[in-house]
Amino acid sequence: MKEFELIKQFFTAQPVNRKDVAMGIGDDCALIEASGDSLIAVTTDTLVAGVHFPLDTSARAIGHKAVAVNLSDLAAMGAVPSWISVAITLPEVDEKWLAEFTQGMFELTEYYNVQLIGGDTTQGPLSITITAQGTVARNTALCRSGAKNGDYVFVTNTIGDAGLALAAINGLVELSEQDFAKVKEKLDFPRPQVLVAQMIREFATAAIDVSDGLLADLEHLCKASNLGIDIDLANVPLSDVMLSNLSKKQAITMALTSGDDYQLIFTVPATNKVGVETAMAHANVDYRCLGQLNPSQQINLLLDGENFAVPNNGFQHFS
Amino acid sequence: MKEFELIKQFFTAQPVNRKDVAMGIGDDCALIEASGDSLIAVTTDTLVAGVHFPLDTSARAIGHKAVAVNLSDLAAMGAVPSWISVAITLPEVDEKWLAEFTQGMFELTEYYNVQLIGGDTTQGPLSITITAQGTVARNTALCRSGAKNGDYVFVTNTIGDAGLALAAINGLVELSEQDFAKVKEKLDFPRPQVLVAQMIREFATAAIDVSDGLLADLEHLCKASNLGIDIDLANVPLSDVMLSNLSKKQAITMALTSGDDYQLIFTVPATNKVGVETAMAHANVDYRCLGQLNPSQQINLLLDGENFAVPNNGFQHFS
Repeated sequence: MKEFELIKQFFTAQPVNRKDVAMGIGDDCALIEASGDSLIAVTTDTLVAGVHFPLDTSARAIGHKAVAVNLSDLAAMGAVPSWISVAITLPEVDEKWLAEFTQGMFELTEYYNVQLIGGDTTQGPLSITITAQGTVARNTALCRSGAKNGDYVFVTNTIGDAGLALAAINGLVELSEQDFAKVKEKLDFPRPQVLVAQMIREFATAAIDVSDGLLADLEHLCKASNLGIDIDLANVPLSDVMLSNLSKKQAITMALTSGDDYQLIFTVPATNKVGVETAMAHANVDYRCLGQLNPSQQINLLLDGENFAVPNNGFQHFS
Repeated sequence: MKEFELIKQFFTAQPVNRKDVAMGIGDDCALIEASGDSLIAVTTDTLVAGVHFPLDTSARAIGHKAVAVNLSDLAAMGAVPSWISVAITLPEVDEKWLAEFTQGMFELTEYYNVQLIGGDTTQGPLSITITAQGTVARNTALCRSGAKNGDYVFVTNTIGDAGLALAAINGLVELSEQDFAKVKEKLDFPRPQVLVAQMIREFATAAIDVSDGLLADLEHLCKASNLGIDIDLANVPLSDVMLSNLSKKQAITMALTSGDDYQLIFTVPATNKVGVETAMAHANVDYRCLGQLNPSQQINLLLDGENFAVPNNGFQHFS
């Protein structure tokens, strides 16, 4: 395993050096300083090659995505990311691959001032598990269960693009080179909504990130809060690429059922609606309001005034 | 992936409920309360099937070991374990396997009052990554670099048994059923030296756990502290099973080079030697003193007054 010892050099060259890291990489454990004023948010996500990303995904994209999906979970809690541990299992030591993988990781960790504090490198089929941690002031965490009856439900940017890229990769839809490049970028380099999370924290009651699909994640939030919602699907935010390559029903179904977008769903009481809308406008963040929560504990989907049933085989149903 | 959602029930039924966990399993992140008085120690270790444990290892042993190797790292830092996150990748959902795996995990987490706060379950080749966290009062962490010239080097219990079990499994040595059972227990169910770590913390200057092998881990400690040591190998603690099945040179080589014992190496200044020996005797913990650190930055091995060179092919050299 000597070769695997060499891997460590790629990880020790990380760009961030936080004051609250008393001991970084190199000992039996890392040591981090916690302030008694904040809670520490902890999340763990694994990406397995061929399951969570196509086998031919670039190493830089894998590195980026492995960090991004974890920062997205921290954002969904309203936490500011601080530290990550990276466990990577690799079939063989490939220095070029590792250089690109860590580049992808570090582009994101440097941007958000997140320090890599440790991890493990092992030999085996390619997979990456990251544990990310951040801080959130007491009583300001955005739990899924915090939403209240009457709260407005917002979602950031557009939904479904990552799913469209995957559909194209799997030969289910044909895209122009230009369109494919646009959605492939969304699939490979998702941008965790860390800054949006900080901005909405004072206005919002609950949040969740869109990793399983808009419908599934809305269901998680509604279930945790014992609420429901009627959604006019005309309000689901869709990109131009989605609208120009899929029928309306296909595009909406894609947005409802495909994951990997890592946008943020959050809920805001009526009294904070103007406040959050003003903040989002100032920050130039695109968002849409999907509707208001109600006590029904059910999600009703409406398109052009009629009930919309998500087909079992997803967007292909309409092709 | 519906089936994989079902796995979660095995993990949510965990036995520990700590007051400092504000949010456990079930949201985007866990939330833990940190006291400003302590540092948080963080460690991550991956076990890959066929690499870190034989493919036919019992699920209960895999669960135990995955937790144990991480608690061992916390012990080596002098930290008290508090929280773990578990990422498990499984080829298929096997309820019996999962029940036994979580049983193995929870036997250890319950004993040490460690709460499972989250994780991820994914489909793929079997591997387990655990991130374990604990607390350690400021300025009392046992870093590898803390050892001083003249410090005595101690090691707990016996070394090499796990390696002997692996050698037997690989057909390199033949053991009686009874002897094999004894060392197999050490390989499958290593006991992290958590309590010893708490006991020695006030006496010790540095510590490391024996995961790579006595020699390799001593080298890590000496290198981090810029010191060296002359070891009379008669002082290496060997079990009766080791001594009765291997020649003296084989047994010593096995102890020096095989890992997986998860005993603790720690260093103690001369002024604290009596104190630590008294504490260890009261707690009824077996230990041996390997010698005193010197400024040579080299590890010299002596057996019966002669230099001992570890053969390249390990203990088989002497067979």
